[in-house]
Amino acid sequence: MRKRKRFELDENEMPKKWCNILPELPKPLPPPLSPATNEPLNPKELEALFPKELINQEISKEHDITIPKEIRETLQDIRPSPLIRAQRLEEFLKTKVRIYYKYEGERSPTGSHKVNTAIAQAFYNTKEGTESLTTETGAGQWGSALAYACHLFDLNCKVMMVKASYDQKPHRRTIMELFGAEVHPSPSSKTEFGKKLLSEDPQHPGSLGIAISEAITLALKQEQTKYSLGSVLNHVLLHQTVIGLEAIQQFQMAENEFLGPDFIVGCVGGGSNFAGLAYPFIREKMRNGYEMQAVAAESTAASKMSDGDYRYDFGDTANMTPLLKMYTLGSEYIPPPIHAGGLRYHGVAPSLSVLINTGNVSPMKYKQQTAFEAAEIFAKSEGIIPAPESAHAIAAVIDLARESKNEEKTILFNLSGHGLFDLLGYQKYLANELE
Amino acid sequence: MRKRKRFELDENEMPKKWCNILPELPKPLPPPLSPATNEPLNPKELEALFPKELINQEISKEHDITIPKEIRETLQDIRPSPLIRAQRLEEFLKTKVRIYYKYEGERSPTGSHKVNTAIAQAFYNTKEGTESLTTETGAGQWGSALAYACHLFDLNCKVMMVKASYDQKPHRRTIMELFGAEVHPSPSSKTEFGKKLLSEDPQHPGSLGIAISEAITLALKQEQTKYSLGSVLNHVLLHQTVIGLEAIQQFQMAENEFLGPDFIVGCVGGGSNFAGLAYPFIREKMRNGYEMQAVAAESTAASKMSDGDYRYDFGDTANMTPLLKMYTLGSEYIPPPIHAGGLRYHGVAPSLSVLINTGNVSPMKYKQQTAFEAAEIFAKSEGIIPAPESAHAIAAVIDLARESKNEEKTILFNLSGHGLFDLLGYQKYLANELE
Repeated sequence: MRKRKRFELDENEMPKKWCNILPELPKPLPPPLSPATNEPLNPKELEALFPKELINQEISKEHDITIPKEIRETLQDIRPSPLIRAQRLEEFLKTKVRIYYKYEGERSPTGSHKVNTAIAQAFYNTKEGTESLTTETGAGQWGSALAYACHLFDLNCKVMMVKASYDQKPHRRTIMELFGAEVHPSPSSKTEFGKKLLSEDPQHPGSLGIAISEAITLALKQEQTKYSLGSVLNHVLLHQTVIGLEAIQQFQMAENEFLGPDFIVGCVGGGSNFAGLAYPFIREKMRNGYEMQAVAAESTAASKMSDGDYRYDFGDTANMTPLLKMYTLGSEYIPPPIHAGGLRYHGVAPSLSVLINTGNVSPMKYKQQTAFEAAEIFAKSEGIIPAPESAHAIAAVIDLARESKNEEKTILFNLSGHGLFDLLGYQKYLANELE
Repeated sequence: MRKRKRFELDENEMPKKWCNILPELPKPLPPPLSPATNEPLNPKELEALFPKELINQEISKEHDITIPKEIRETLQDIRPSPLIRAQRLEEFLKTKVRIYYKYEGERSPTGSHKVNTAIAQAFYNTKEGTESLTTETGAGQWGSALAYACHLFDLNCKVMMVKASYDQKPHRRTIMELFGAEVHPSPSSKTEFGKKLLSEDPQHPGSLGIAISEAITLALKQEQTKYSLGSVLNHVLLHQTVIGLEAIQQFQMAENEFLGPDFIVGCVGGGSNFAGLAYPFIREKMRNGYEMQAVAAESTAASKMSDGDYRYDFGDTANMTPLLKMYTLGSEYIPPPIHAGGLRYHGVAPSLSVLINTGNVSPMKYKQQTAFEAAEIFAKSEGIIPAPESAHAIAAVIDLARESKNEEKTILFNLSGHGLFDLLGYQKYLANELE
């Protein structure tokens, strides 16, 4: 029986700067448009929702952006995360391919990578006098991460939780409340939009797009209150690049020299965990031109990258957000209720959309059943039960490792979170009762 | 805001030998008695249940017992575990006391220390030709740990799960089944004893003592099948001493010189996580006589150490096990259904009982409500949601830290597991609905 191999960094080896992909993009990022005028948005229009520092990061052309000391010290409670070589999985797959994963769930208080940006956003908001943050959450990974970060920085936190999850997944709600957040089911009676939807259907299950609309509305109508988003936007993806920057150092430790991995894989809801791992390597590829294929794994239930259009669309259902140029299934699209709640989003990050459109990132889509089968293989070989979202990345890794069975290749993927909050999905999978 | 400090060991610094407390005990361990004759048990009588190597460990007088290479390599997937200084908790408590914890939940596939002995027991059984293991589990921590270990060593695993938990806590069952174990509610129709109880009460909620009786019965009637216990016995506690042996090295790193901690704290169900941390330090104390107080935290729902008798008693309800001299509430005692399922046991390890009886370990008992209040403080300050069992240790730590508020003392406790499988308990706590 082969054993796992871990590659660890000391906390002082944690990156001191984030990797900004914007100046590296092969095509300039199409600007967000104002929903009012359809003209390019004036960044000032965002100040009602976000602190100035995050708006600056949203449009920054700097290659590297310094991570403030306070954020680094707070992140050091939970980072650097380990890089692990999945030797047992390799053995099970009978492949020559060396498979590595960056594991974001091990030390995260809420079990996923989301806390990396939650801490940064809470810090900048506190610094600029924000007293409360509002946000939305689907299954609850993002909401619980922000609840934790807000607790650390003494911010009030109000989370609009998609009603279907609010009713069916009380555990994530318990964590948010344990960390002091206020959690409300969405659609709610707290906004006109929510009231309208409830009047049409009192049993409305809600959606991420609707919850975003409500969270924005609450932020706009309260004093000293801003809004926080867990994916899609440039500054959110920026904060996640600590994952890939650590992985570059760890991959050198593992492979002795830096020939980067041949494949980099991550799952994609809005794009933040994929970008967090892949962008620093993609920058290396752009600059030094090493051969690498970046694979973005999505769900067939929300396959915007494989099947969506590349066009301007809204980020929310009430069409309140700026228009973003992205791969989208349409802001009105409501994905079926798969267990990988984090992948149930109609669009994808504009920066990632440019990289897909220019052939620098290749999408792959997987059915829920296939993802859980991959998750079972991984749990049995590596002893870690993956989040259903991450399981989609694992399904892609298994395909790639089997294709290159006899080649001396390397795969690196992001195990963005554990599945200990998603055992209901595993229970249904084992009972062959998956939707 | 102060940050946590971690003290890590490399995997090659993991102990190469277990610490055997038996030769260190201030009074010889009273021998187990045969239930048939009431005479001291002939170790051969145990061979129907346990492999010879584990029986040898059960009665060994060696000070140090070598950890086989195969066990060390398997443990290295999940060990060494970190020692963490709880500076945020210290800050919250406004205490000068330095508080450290050994965290067994971070890398354990099933979230607790139980896997340390599960791996050792699975290995020795495989080595001696066992094909199947039977065991019991309450809330499921032990059962899931053994299921994982059996999967690693290609053993069949049959778990008798206390019916109340089987019905109310499906998630632990899902993990056991994901790792390939067969899980049955106890009382079951698989044994005469189970049938008898079900005929008296078809809705019988079961108990750990009953599940032990059934698991032993199944082991005795099947070929190549042995029984595995998750606590109480000497060999089980022995396997857990890697925790304290690592902590001795890490505490030296943390405090620069080795003056051991002034207080060592752990929660006690059967005694294995407490012994795992405390025994190596107690050995240091016996040998070098440094000043230290060992505190064993139990639940008021099963306060055998505080309120039980020190006498010979059975380990199970059907009175099939050897008689052990221990602090006990009586083998017929059924504790109320607290969320800390791991503390719901009528007796406690014989070796720990000797140490309590000779004044080397002091029990403290806590109500469920107090334990959850301590858990909330810990979660908010350290960002880790503790298992309800471990929360009892935290309650004791908080009391000790407040008593010694202005003294330069140190406390080390065992955070034996995380509470991510116990969020129902937290949900009820937050809603003020705790039993």
